[in-house]
Amino acid sequence: MLPTPRTERFPANTPAASQIFTTVLSQGPLTRLEVARRAGLSPAAVTKAVRPLIEAGYLTEGADEEARPALGRPATLVRVDGGRALFVGVKVTGDEIIGVVTDLCCRIRLVRHVPLTDRDLGAVLAAVADLVHELRAEADEADEGGAGVHGLGIAVSGDVDRGEGTVRYSPFLEWRDVPLAELAATTTGLPVTVDNDVRALTVAEQWFGAGAGRSDFAVVTVGAGIGCGLVVHGRVVSGAHGVAGEIGHVTVDPSGPPCHCGNRGCVEAIAGDAAILRRIRETTGLEVADSAEAARLAHSGVPGAREAYARAGEAIGRGIATVANLLGPELVIISGEGLAAYDLFAEQIRDTFAAAAFGSAARCDVRTRPLPFTEWARGAAATAIQSFIRADS
Amino acid sequence: MLPTPRTERFPANTPAASQIFTTVLSQGPLTRLEVARRAGLSPAAVTKAVRPLIEAGYLTEGADEEARPALGRPATLVRVDGGRALFVGVKVTGDEIIGVVTDLCCRIRLVRHVPLTDRDLGAVLAAVADLVHELRAEADEADEGGAGVHGLGIAVSGDVDRGEGTVRYSPFLEWRDVPLAELAATTTGLPVTVDNDVRALTVAEQWFGAGAGRSDFAVVTVGAGIGCGLVVHGRVVSGAHGVAGEIGHVTVDPSGPPCHCGNRGCVEAIAGDAAILRRIRETTGLEVADSAEAARLAHSGVPGAREAYARAGEAIGRGIATVANLLGPELVIISGEGLAAYDLFAEQIRDTFAAAAFGSAARCDVRTRPLPFTEWARGAAATAIQSFIRADS
Ligand SMILES: [Zn+2]
Ligand SMILES: [Zn+2]
Repeated sequence: MLPTPRTERFPANTPAASQIFTTVLSQGPLTRLEVARRAGLSPAAVTKAVRPLIEAGYLTEGADEEARPALGRPATLVRVDGGRALFVGVKVTGDEIIGVVTDLCCRIRLVRHVPLTDRDLGAVLAAVADLVHELRAEADEADEGGAGVHGLGIAVSGDVDRGEGTVRYSPFLEWRDVPLAELAATTTGLPVTVDNDVRALTVAEQWFGAGAGRSDFAVVTVGAGIGCGLVVHGRVVSGAHGVAGEIGHVTVDPSGPPCHCGNRGCVEAIAGDAAILRRIRETTGLEVADSAEAARLAHSGVPGAREAYARAGEAIGRGIATVANLLGPELVIISGEGLAAYDLFAEQIRDTFAAAAFGSAARCDVRTRPLPFTEWARGAAATAIQSFIRADS
Repeated sequence: MLPTPRTERFPANTPAASQIFTTVLSQGPLTRLEVARRAGLSPAAVTKAVRPLIEAGYLTEGADEEARPALGRPATLVRVDGGRALFVGVKVTGDEIIGVVTDLCCRIRLVRHVPLTDRDLGAVLAAVADLVHELRAEADEADEGGAGVHGLGIAVSGDVDRGEGTVRYSPFLEWRDVPLAELAATTTGLPVTVDNDVRALTVAEQWFGAGAGRSDFAVVTVGAGIGCGLVVHGRVVSGAHGVAGEIGHVTVDPSGPPCHCGNRGCVEAIAGDAAILRRIRETTGLEVADSAEAARLAHSGVPGAREAYARAGEAIGRGIATVANLLGPELVIISGEGLAAYDLFAEQIRDTFAAAAFGSAARCDVRTRPLPFTEWARGAAATAIQSFIRADS
């Protein structure tokens, strides 16, 4: 039996109300005055928007007990009641599905991994539905009388049209033009948001992470692929035709190794996991099984292995400099499973970035942030939260 | 005697009113319903915003005589009265000042060029003030009883902070940290907007050119330098630290010729005018005086000259592909004085772009648009129009 789709609507029915709630969600707790300042709206608009949100239990207001002044009353702060609504986020990789339950503030409450043995659409849909069903049951049990799960986000690598809810092309899953949002809504009974995995991670960073309150930043993910999520003028860049943030296919050396995209010397063809393994095999003649072994070889000082990581770092640094020269972001966050070997190429990333950044673009703050695989699923939950809040706006 | 600064205010005192006027200005004439649809606002909001703008003479409303239906009445269209206000736009290059007078719809009414013999700040300010004075006198004479000049825009290449009105660094003029807007306002008595020249050209394309009505596009200028203006989510990208659109310093070949930025093989180090001349001198041994002679040699079939342009085209095509892979714009407009030799590298630009664009990013519409130097001055006027309209919003 399918669970009944929820029809509860979020009570922020104007763009201003939606913006005010988002400001408190990503930057709160804040005083009403500070909410008005940061949202660029009048205190009266904040008062008007806050009332129905407090009545419906999405916002609460109370004294700031942490910063109690020596004399007089403490400031009154507006904050989101995270427990008011739960969300499920799912990241689908080529061999695993990772699911999380988060609250409205995108704090993880439950995590579950299930292996994916069959990449066929029907099998993946069934596995996602089972996982969501289990997570919901467990969340409802732990949170008896709570508000329950209000939405599902699914993150997939590849070309995804979030507006249409379709996966246009996923190389890992070998899917083309799959109306995933609609199919998953049917099997789970939840409102579903589908997005590209790097963009979903970027949404999580924008609303709940290092990018909160920033209008221009980038997330660069290092691992099997080299991806990039871009936030420009406060919004994630999606591209007119669905392609954006393809830092992995920025050319760094036109006579470099061939890339699966058909070009040579792309960042990914030098710095992706497979490229590093191939390079170590070529220069050392050793049979290297996986990235963990490659990193071990480099850590133990094998010159060919160290050189492969150094080259990868230069390629990534040059790719980041290209992003900085074109867009001038305040901040670049480097993340992804490749960070496990970060000490092997951090210096080359920094040095190449500094040399290739043009003028004051070099003032961009480049930092690393370890985001384990559960964070990708959390990113999917963040897109579901975003859709929920904006549904009526 | 200084002319009296104008204090007339533009009667669109809300963001919605400003947006409605901008929609009519860049996409009109339109019916009220179509204005509402394109601005994403209610017909009631349009009615409310349009009334004071019609009363003040900035908008007019009348029958669509061009599309008169066979039966019934023609549609009523809202349009901007271009003659309601005039603007002066000035582009300062290293050896010339180009000034234009435009109407409110950015149509050029007058053009004047004056040589610049001295790049000293005082000399440039005096030359700009003289030019503006002459243009205003001539415009007022031609437009007796008209509304007169309402603002001045100045476009300069280099690192310009439009918000602060300062030229932070201009390599051609050898200026650093010049508060140009304030100084020029004092000498001309007009409200002054200062912007980077490529961004000013991009504003003109966004509001009055091929980018009108588009939220994501790029303008790439080819000539002495290789520049790029980017519009993302409907706004020109300025960069957190003032640097953005530096397509000229995207690396296309790390072992290529040295660039003035300190790196090797930047697009500009291969495709800028000076780089093409240098390459032809190196490969042919001929003393080539200027770009016109270089183009003549290539047109007459000298292999070394043809090859230099072909390499330039490949570098530009790769730079444009990088922009497309990162941002996925709908449209890239190639322009600049280098277009004079466009037939010499058009094919290489197209082929390299097509090969290096990732997936559906290749669907980006790449076209050329000859924009003579007066268009740069028109871009400066467009920034003044933009400031005038947004002054109260
Ligand atoms: Zn590639
Ligand atoms: Zn350079």
